[in-house]
Amino acid sequence: MAYPLPQGFRLAGVHCGIKNSGKLDLSLVASDAPAAAAGVYTQNLVFAAPVGWDRKLTPSERVRAIVINSGNANACTGAQGDRDCAEMARLVGKALGADPEQVLVLSTGVIGRFLPMERIATGIAAATQALARTDDALVQAATGMLTTDTRHKLASCAVPLAGGEVTVTGMVKGAAMIGPNMATMLGVILTDAALDAGTAQEILSAAVADSFNCISVDGHMSTNDTVLLLASGAAGPRQLSAADRAQLAAAVREVAIELAQAIPADGEGATHLVTIDVRGCRDRAAAHLIAKTVAESPLVKTAIAGGDPNWGRIVSAAGYSGVPFHPGRVTLRVNHVLLYAQGAPVEFDAAAVSRSIRDNRDTFVELQFDEGDADVRFWTTDLTAEYVRLNADYTT
Amino acid sequence: MAYPLPQGFRLAGVHCGIKNSGKLDLSLVASDAPAAAAGVYTQNLVFAAPVGWDRKLTPSERVRAIVINSGNANACTGAQGDRDCAEMARLVGKALGADPEQVLVLSTGVIGRFLPMERIATGIAAATQALARTDDALVQAATGMLTTDTRHKLASCAVPLAGGEVTVTGMVKGAAMIGPNMATMLGVILTDAALDAGTAQEILSAAVADSFNCISVDGHMSTNDTVLLLASGAAGPRQLSAADRAQLAAAVREVAIELAQAIPADGEGATHLVTIDVRGCRDRAAAHLIAKTVAESPLVKTAIAGGDPNWGRIVSAAGYSGVPFHPGRVTLRVNHVLLYAQGAPVEFDAAAVSRSIRDNRDTFVELQFDEGDADVRFWTTDLTAEYVRLNADYTT
Repeated sequence: MAYPLPQGFRLAGVHCGIKNSGKLDLSLVASDAPAAAAGVYTQNLVFAAPVGWDRKLTPSERVRAIVINSGNANACTGAQGDRDCAEMARLVGKALGADPEQVLVLSTGVIGRFLPMERIATGIAAATQALARTDDALVQAATGMLTTDTRHKLASCAVPLAGGEVTVTGMVKGAAMIGPNMATMLGVILTDAALDAGTAQEILSAAVADSFNCISVDGHMSTNDTVLLLASGAAGPRQLSAADRAQLAAAVREVAIELAQAIPADGEGATHLVTIDVRGCRDRAAAHLIAKTVAESPLVKTAIAGGDPNWGRIVSAAGYSGVPFHPGRVTLRVNHVLLYAQGAPVEFDAAAVSRSIRDNRDTFVELQFDEGDADVRFWTTDLTAEYVRLNADYTT
Repeated sequence: MAYPLPQGFRLAGVHCGIKNSGKLDLSLVASDAPAAAAGVYTQNLVFAAPVGWDRKLTPSERVRAIVINSGNANACTGAQGDRDCAEMARLVGKALGADPEQVLVLSTGVIGRFLPMERIATGIAAATQALARTDDALVQAATGMLTTDTRHKLASCAVPLAGGEVTVTGMVKGAAMIGPNMATMLGVILTDAALDAGTAQEILSAAVADSFNCISVDGHMSTNDTVLLLASGAAGPRQLSAADRAQLAAAVREVAIELAQAIPADGEGATHLVTIDVRGCRDRAAAHLIAKTVAESPLVKTAIAGGDPNWGRIVSAAGYSGVPFHPGRVTLRVNHVLLYAQGAPVEFDAAAVSRSIRDNRDTFVELQFDEGDADVRFWTTDLTAEYVRLNADYTT
């Protein structure tokens, strides 16, 4: 298979009519046996019904399925939204011979509309029939969760543990909350390693901190953001040694980073994937806050869109992040060229740096502080007129 | 005069060649006698040389002048920047027979370039010659501080105190940090009321909290933001009663709000001035944070640009502000139409609301919470493709 699929899982993606476009809009991931499951969720106070449902059920050691619909976020839908979400879990559980509480639910799409439950019931029935362990099924499942994404996003990694090889495979959708009326990034990572629920949660939370929590397109936190990890235990050793666990955690982290990067890389209207390295901070939280503030400055993002090595915007964004630092000890490189050293401007070939930004899809921003040893790597998009056009379209 | 000018002040605005465009780029405000002066400054850790200079000198009771240059921010310019700033104060002091420490300095424009000091010296000499108490002089001073603004911004207010009438007149430039390579909002408010330095600072700080700290264009805090209040004491009673002081404070607040609103109203590429009322919060800080988060969401701003009554974006932005509230008790109106009531969607005529957004330059967003009595009014722009184009232009 192009993307090796962990043992013990079957997948499907179907069209059931939530989207008018005819594109796939319902995906199903089934675990042959109860799997360990962990989740990380949006911190938005206004969260969607499925976020509330999954949050109650994870960590768990008995999850049998994840059902995912796109085209409707089931967010800001009140008590009706909660009932619809529970009904999705009930339908999937019934089809697979499991309890509703063994089914996790993910939704993404328009906020504030009720789910078309008849279509969803039809879709769940069709997806159950279609469940398979094939390349096609994996790609269809990864496609059924998309909204304004231009492509499906998959990543995979084989992990040779002492007691046998295991596999980590993930799929993700979205690019923060970027689409017209659309919300959400959703991610599902599957492994056939054997994990207890607590370890699964630890591994996932650590991986998310370095991946999905280090990306931003527009800084607008969605009502539905969810990343789930399912571990079937169908391959590899029954009990992971500490070394195995560390190796698996590293693999999950790698897959999560690859998936996370794919989101700004597919950001709406984006012409650049911007990697921001912040180094030498007092602690990780400080480095993260500086990186996020730079990543979300419209002035930094438009400068990169325009190929403008406008270092004043980057340095001043760091300055208003709220993190204390010595301004006289800041050094900045863009695309590996030194622009600002120890708090003072440096002569550089502006035309050459501009060309290197314009000619490459990747832009590298490196901000060096002198406060400590903490580093963070963060990814974002540039901000283009096309982003504005896409999001200003009156679509309702 | 079109804008009544407080007694005791003379003004000028000249072109000295900092800007290549030939536009006015140096302004001078002179007080005939030592004036009480208060300042409020950017909280950016990376602040410009003149911010450091003024911060040390205010509050004060002996200020004789404010010199303002546009076209160059004198920010991120290290020790040379500090020396240049002090030299500007020295030149003005010498011309007016005052100490350098009686002169406040404001700069705005490109970050990271050294000031052209010969041109500035010529400009200061010319401005000193041109000082006058005329409509023209006031407009020229208000023009000499502009960067990418499309118009000068003035506001004025006569205040009938018990002991005689006084005047409050202010001028302002900028629209947050919006211009290509440009930084800064600068404001100068003049009054001929008699104030001690402490009272001047209190009145200014309170006024700024409700005005300049309640606007945002792109959320990028500049290195140069400064608002100054000068009180000459040339009119009205020698000693202000408590009632007089309250009336003057209200007038300064009114002028500050009018000037502050003028900034997003002239925001680059903006097609809407958006007024956001957040009501019923636990405290003012909570209301302010929610308003600011909504104001700075690119998804909210693009929706308004597109005339899209996309309430999910507004409610979800409030949800990620970090302020705790009950999602089930949130009510939202856009242009006075109810869209979301007590946490649930409401049927409304989407086409009519869209039309009301598109047909009017003013958009009103009202978010009602049920947590307490604190309210805030905040102003912002929409986000258009034109903003992106203007800020993506490679200009260096």
